[in-house]
Amino acid sequence: MRISQLFTKTSKTAPADEVAKNAQLLIRAGYVYKVMAGVYAYTTLGLRVLENIKQVVREEMNAIGGQELIMSSLQKKSTWEETGRWDDEVVDVWFKSKLKDETEVGFGWSHEEAIIEMMKQYLKSYKDLPINVYQFQTKMRNELRAKSGIMRGREFIMKDMYSCSIDAKQHDAFYNATIEAYNRVYDRLGIGDDTYVTFASGGAFTQFSHEFQTICEAGEDVIYLHREKNIAINEEVLNDKTLTELGINRDELEKVKTAEVGNIFNFGTQKSEETKFTFTNAEGKEQFVHLGSYGIGITRVMGVIVEKFADERGIVWPESVAPAKVYLVRIGGDAAIAHADELYGELTAKGIEVLYDDRDERPGTKFADAELMGIPYRVTVSDRLLADEKYELTPRVTGDTKLLTRAELLDTLG
Amino acid sequence: MRISQLFTKTSKTAPADEVAKNAQLLIRAGYVYKVMAGVYAYTTLGLRVLENIKQVVREEMNAIGGQELIMSSLQKKSTWEETGRWDDEVVDVWFKSKLKDETEVGFGWSHEEAIIEMMKQYLKSYKDLPINVYQFQTKMRNELRAKSGIMRGREFIMKDMYSCSIDAKQHDAFYNATIEAYNRVYDRLGIGDDTYVTFASGGAFTQFSHEFQTICEAGEDVIYLHREKNIAINEEVLNDKTLTELGINRDELEKVKTAEVGNIFNFGTQKSEETKFTFTNAEGKEQFVHLGSYGIGITRVMGVIVEKFADERGIVWPESVAPAKVYLVRIGGDAAIAHADELYGELTAKGIEVLYDDRDERPGTKFADAELMGIPYRVTVSDRLLADEKYELTPRVTGDTKLLTRAELLDTLG
Repeated sequence: MRISQLFTKTSKTAPADEVAKNAQLLIRAGYVYKVMAGVYAYTTLGLRVLENIKQVVREEMNAIGGQELIMSSLQKKSTWEETGRWDDEVVDVWFKSKLKDETEVGFGWSHEEAIIEMMKQYLKSYKDLPINVYQFQTKMRNELRAKSGIMRGREFIMKDMYSCSIDAKQHDAFYNATIEAYNRVYDRLGIGDDTYVTFASGGAFTQFSHEFQTICEAGEDVIYLHREKNIAINEEVLNDKTLTELGINRDELEKVKTAEVGNIFNFGTQKSEETKFTFTNAEGKEQFVHLGSYGIGITRVMGVIVEKFADERGIVWPESVAPAKVYLVRIGGDAAIAHADELYGELTAKGIEVLYDDRDERPGTKFADAELMGIPYRVTVSDRLLADEKYELTPRVTGDTKLLTRAELLDTLG
Repeated sequence: MRISQLFTKTSKTAPADEVAKNAQLLIRAGYVYKVMAGVYAYTTLGLRVLENIKQVVREEMNAIGGQELIMSSLQKKSTWEETGRWDDEVVDVWFKSKLKDETEVGFGWSHEEAIIEMMKQYLKSYKDLPINVYQFQTKMRNELRAKSGIMRGREFIMKDMYSCSIDAKQHDAFYNATIEAYNRVYDRLGIGDDTYVTFASGGAFTQFSHEFQTICEAGEDVIYLHREKNIAINEEVLNDKTLTELGINRDELEKVKTAEVGNIFNFGTQKSEETKFTFTNAEGKEQFVHLGSYGIGITRVMGVIVEKFADERGIVWPESVAPAKVYLVRIGGDAAIAHADELYGELTAKGIEVLYDDRDERPGTKFADAELMGIPYRVTVSDRLLADEKYELTPRVTGDTKLLTRAELLDTLG
């Protein structure tokens, strides 16, 4: 894509009311537009990053048998009354409105009850189970405060998955497969090394749930980490009982700030009992379905990646999520233009995504934008370099520039 | 995909309150789940159809220089007050709610005002224009009645595109390019022959806008068609002045029922004057931006395709939108199973999408489901056919079964 054709522009400043580093950088680099506190639009480049993250998640969810679907944002009152969660005293993030005939409707902040209501129509027999479905849904949450940029929005994108199993054993197998799939997701997104499966509070059915917490200064959570044993514990369950069970001394734990990038939850049969979600087992008897719920905040992960890797010059995208692999800088006259045009064509034809800075701007402006936007490889074509038949290649992470021949350049980028 | 693993099931009946043929069939075939009147979830197969339609639209919008982005559903009151369209007396389909501090917010039923507010931040100079952006957005409209299935939802997916141009000439060039792009879209979706560019009422700036109307008994519109001259006129502008201008006699026109599958609108500078959206021209003077708005109802198009092509046995998808090209029916014992498994693998490896009916059901049930689900080609593998080294191939459109060798089968499907 040619930078001259992008409708967005980089900026030296972010909106005055934007306090989160992730949103400041994303707005300045032209990935995100702030609609209001906690509500952001994603530009052409921002949407590419989101789609890259979604595709990694999609592939890993499909690999464990997940079926993608899309539910509705509009929610019926009756769907949520069964479990008591329509009540604003119980769930304080509902956005609600009314149909013309005064019927109350809500906007989905979660889809747990909605998916159960739907699945009750399709899943009747043990032969229909197990089933795992997921979606990438725009969630609405009426947050009191929204100061964390895209890490905690009033409108945000979540991958939410739900599993329906015949018993605890079938449920546990999928639950554990999901832990592994989530670890692969975070590895592929470049945050695996700093992301920990964390013991958190369970529900009526289980002692613990599991969160995926990424070490991040801008995070809103605190976990206690045993690096050696690779065990992490959320503050809320850090007590003597937990420590004894996990065989850990409190003084071995390191307190770190983290952002929750995923969570998984075993409902057992609690929710199916509340909603009367049953199936007929092999003996012809009615049994309650075992349910699980598994979330990854897609927009939040994008924000965490920005927070973690950004430096004083701007964003640093891992290759797997970057909107382009190469930022092609063109410096000079007709020869450099023709040469850069041709290289842009060749790289694009090879399937390498390129942001081509074809603007009539000073080199310093182009270099600064390449860094602000965080594209993994900057390639420079200039009259001076062409005279030596060389190209400059500068990885965003190291900032170390190398002079390469064309063959070496294509080999490195290929 | 194996049918045995799909969570959906076909059904002989649709919900009693569902009167629209499109929704009845989509629900029975397992593409769509009804959440409430006018609100539907899309299952794994339904989502595939939606994504296929979106991809066709995406390719054609990209081909005319459109940049994809995604706006927010949540809307600020101030954004819409400038043009008077926050008022429920002016726009009667708003869903509105409130933030915790009592600030009113709306849910996007359109994004015209929102995109202008955003573009004002980026587009300042004639050098920044023209720009065309589009999104696939979930729109919310508080419709009084919702009886047309997915053809008129309270929550639905729309492709909405917006153009910003320096003058009428630049605007017109893009407007006309969009007409051609839309025609290509409808051609590729299989409804091109019955879709007409239709003169409809304009606004303050133009005499006419243009709608894309598809002949469809279930449609809510009526147009007057001059088949010979390929001119269509919406009821609302059918008057002597229009007829004289188009050189048509009233008695040459055929009255037909249609569904609006797209519309395009030239705002001229009306909206930019209301919202003070200006740019600096080459002479350094402020001028108002020329704006256009271009919609395609993605979910509506899906509904129209069902309405138009369905027969008494079920849905008939055009290949371009079908969730799979082949419905593979397996009949018989171990040999047929092994053979069908192997064929499923081979077709899938060739990139041909296959719905594999691997269930232990009677052949009649499988054939009926293949027809209800509307998959373009049914392929049957059975013990009897294997004995003759033959396969049955049955196109959904004709229902004519042919006996083919393996080479002939692969050649036909390839």
